Amino acid sequence: MKGPGLDVGVLGVLPVRADHLDSAAAVDKWLRSAGSVERIRQVGAMSRDKLARFASLLDASTGPELLGSVDPDLATRIVRAAEVTQSARWLEALETDEAAEVLRRLTNSAREKLLAQVNESQALVLRGALRWPATSVAAHMLPDVFTIPDSITAAEAEALLRTQSAQVRSRARAGALIYVTDDDLRLTGFLEFQDLVLAQPDQPVAELSSEDPVWVRPTVDAEQAAQSLVDYELAALPVVDEHRRLLGVLTADAAADILETEATRDAERQGGSEPLEVPYLRASPFRLWRKRIVWLLVLFVAEAYTGTVLRAFEDEMEAVVALAFFIPLLIGTGGNTGTQITTTLVRAMGTGQVRLRDLPAILTKEMSTGFLVALTMAAAAIIRSWTLGVGPQITITVSLTVAAIVLWSALVSSVLPLILKKCKVDPAVVSAPMIATIVDGTGLIIYFWIAHATLPQLAGL
Amino acid sequence: MKGPGLDVGVLGVLPVRADHLDSAAAVDKWLRSAGSVERIRQVGAMSRDKLARFASLLDASTGPELLGSVDPDLATRIVRAAEVTQSARWLEALETDEAAEVLRRLTNSAREKLLAQVNESQALVLRGALRWPATSVAAHMLPDVFTIPDSITAAEAEALLRTQSAQVRSRARAGALIYVTDDDLRLTGFLEFQDLVLAQPDQPVAELSSEDPVWVRPTVDAEQAAQSLVDYELAALPVVDEHRRLLGVLTADAAADILETEATRDAERQGGSEPLEVPYLRASPFRLWRKRIVWLLVLFVAEAYTGTVLRAFEDEMEAVVALAFFIPLLIGTGGNTGTQITTTLVRAMGTGQVRLRDLPAILTKEMSTGFLVALTMAAAAIIRSWTLGVGPQITITVSLTVAAIVLWSALVSSVLPLILKKCKVDPAVVSAPMIATIVDGTGLIIYFWIAHATLPQLAGL
Repeated sequence: MKGPGLDVGVLGVLPVRADHLDSAAAVDKWLRSAGSVERIRQVGAMSRDKLARFASLLDASTGPELLGSVDPDLATRIVRAAEVTQSARWLEALETDEAAEVLRRLTNSAREKLLAQVNESQALVLRGALRWPATSVAAHMLPDVFTIPDSITAAEAEALLRTQSAQVRSRARAGALIYVTDDDLRLTGFLEFQDLVLAQPDQPVAELSSEDPVWVRPTVDAEQAAQSLVDYELAALPVVDEHRRLLGVLTADAAADILETEATRDAERQGGSEPLEVPYLRASPFRLWRKRIVWLLVLFVAEAYTGTVLRAFEDEMEAVVALAFFIPLLIGTGGNTGTQITTTLVRAMGTGQVRLRDLPAILTKEMSTGFLVALTMAAAAIIRSWTLGVGPQITITVSLTVAAIVLWSALVSSVLPLILKKCKVDPAVVSAPMIATIVDGTGLIIYFWIAHATLPQLAGL
Repeated sequence: MKGPGLDVGVLGVLPVRADHLDSAAAVDKWLRSAGSVERIRQVGAMSRDKLARFASLLDASTGPELLGSVDPDLATRIVRAAEVTQSARWLEALETDEAAEVLRRLTNSAREKLLAQVNESQALVLRGALRWPATSVAAHMLPDVFTIPDSITAAEAEALLRTQSAQVRSRARAGALIYVTDDDLRLTGFLEFQDLVLAQPDQPVAELSSEDPVWVRPTVDAEQAAQSLVDYELAALPVVDEHRRLLGVLTADAAADILETEATRDAERQGGSEPLEVPYLRASPFRLWRKRIVWLLVLFVAEAYTGTVLRAFEDEMEAVVALAFFIPLLIGTGGNTGTQITTTLVRAMGTGQVRLRDLPAILTKEMSTGFLVALTMAAAAIIRSWTLGVGPQITITVSLTVAAIVLWSALVSSVLPLILKKCKVDPAVVSAPMIATIVDGTGLIIYFWIAHATLPQLAGL
């Protein structure tokens, strides 16, 4: 099927490569065919020289378009590669939150040099955005929004909005809302452009406006605010000062970006690594090593405890060497059970479904499930011991141990994420490797303790 | 701070509980205070009786509002609990994709009984939606959208849209787009309501409309379409037939729902479990057991291989029992390294950053990183062996093994997700437990192989 449209279903191979572009028009054409993932891949892979040449082709329209669609780390690299006078124009046209993200990543002197070239009114707005803490919702809000008084009609509102549109720079793609204020400029409601078009011209705005809007204070954590925007299914979340006057809005787009970044961080933490903070393909081996080695060493030290446990039970293993055969199987099963639980719990906590006060419900659920799993796995252990031909006594030891380890692992894994949350630590750090490590050492103690209780050969040890 | 607004920052305890509501007005008030997470928690926890009483309080406005904000599984339970005549009204008012999701979950007879009560035109639309495969983008699209010809002016468009608004039921929150077609009703572009309000009344629509819209075919996979919508930063993605005539749109909201559901599935798979498909707090212990036990047993059988390996090296362990001390530490470190890599890779693949053709780049990156990690961990192993006092020869064996296992694990973990992707299997099934299991058995073979090569005591074995 041919046509001017782009068939996303068959998309994949792109006709143009960004590093072969040679004119501003070619860049414009490339931008229209490449989504943000492809832009990040191609521009992110450029050497410093290529990036500088590419940046020189960007103009007042393609520059902001590109910067707004790539990750902040890459946007900052593009700004660094470009002429200051050129990148100052881009920052003026960029959404305030995106421009501020770039400015935060520059050195003080580079930031000042750039802001000196930005027009005065926008520089003032950007300096204002930079004053908020980077993790606050205010650092991610768009400060300029459409605002109308609640005392006018739909037709008057349309005329007023046309005059405002020159000042309101933000063109939030997902359809900006129009905020309604009372005589004291306090936020009283909002409406959509759609409402205005579909209204009768003489209908009062107050009648079209929704009431009791949800809002947040500027210092609220950005991730929490983004989660609320999704939870309340809003197109934008207004940020207000102590007099309920509008400071700006968090758009659904900005919220999606915040949550996406946090989801990637959580996924990386869950794998037992520090968050990379840049797209994977742009992370150097040294950065990967640095982000991974911290946890690897911590876990190595913790896991080293298993060596101490095993040395303590050296006599038992020498007496019944078959006990050693089951070590990886037993501790592995404990780690697997625990990983299943923490992964599900951490995700449910990340999406707000599960909270601290659910601990009793979680424990009941997980211990009941653990009981069913323990029974099943004990049966599997009996079969496995039988096929290894280790005799009935060791079979009993192994199947009792697997049941005990499954229950112990279920207990640790359901409580630990909630305890960390209580201590204001991100529960996503309870990674699969961490659970495996905790269960390995403690599981071995359970194993030899049960072995002592069930094997007559170990009676004297 | 007091006011009619809702301070999301201090939100947490809600004044009303859904199971104590006793009138339609109270339900309406409750809905205005509770976000979707809270709604799902409270309504999801109701017994069958309570749910039936609660459903009887829902009316033509609060019913669809509630059904549209909870997960499809709960929405279906609410519909089942309500009178058929009542729930038919809700389905008429619900977005088409959400109503179809509920209908798909009902038995054939319940579905037919319900559709018989829905008004004829909407029943026709719903039957049309149900004909598409559940995983296609068409099953998630809104069939009714605003459409205008490209030959009229902004003022004429506003008048036309006002007459259309009665028929166009969908009120996509995030600001619906208006689609523009040529004389043959082919899609040529789109504009926002915002563009129409801000335009001069006599401006032609063709001038306001964006060109070359991205579109998809109806049978494209819904997840792929949703990812494209995000990638191209669209407010909605049009779905067109073979003549490029508009069938409907995938809204940003629907896309976010699809991606959120898929992200939860992936997270659960990454923890070594089958996706739960319902919110965690509503999953019964039996369901949890069922979703978890499959992989646990598969991994148990695979891990049982370690017992075979250890029995094969029984003589070696009896000769040098100290070798056994390091088993959990060595295979644990291998599992940890591998988990870090697969988690990062699977996330990067899930967000479209990494593709099959990146395999060479990934291998280079991961083997370089693996080399750095192997060196560091070998150094840590030397320190640990020294503190356990096992002598220089075993120290050499252990540190060589840790380096070898780290590199082996890095190789397996970087290749496996891409191979599965190539075989059209979701790479998210490469869970932390799976990697740990693979590395456990093979790691032990590496261990004893190196031990044979370095320990003179084992020379005769």
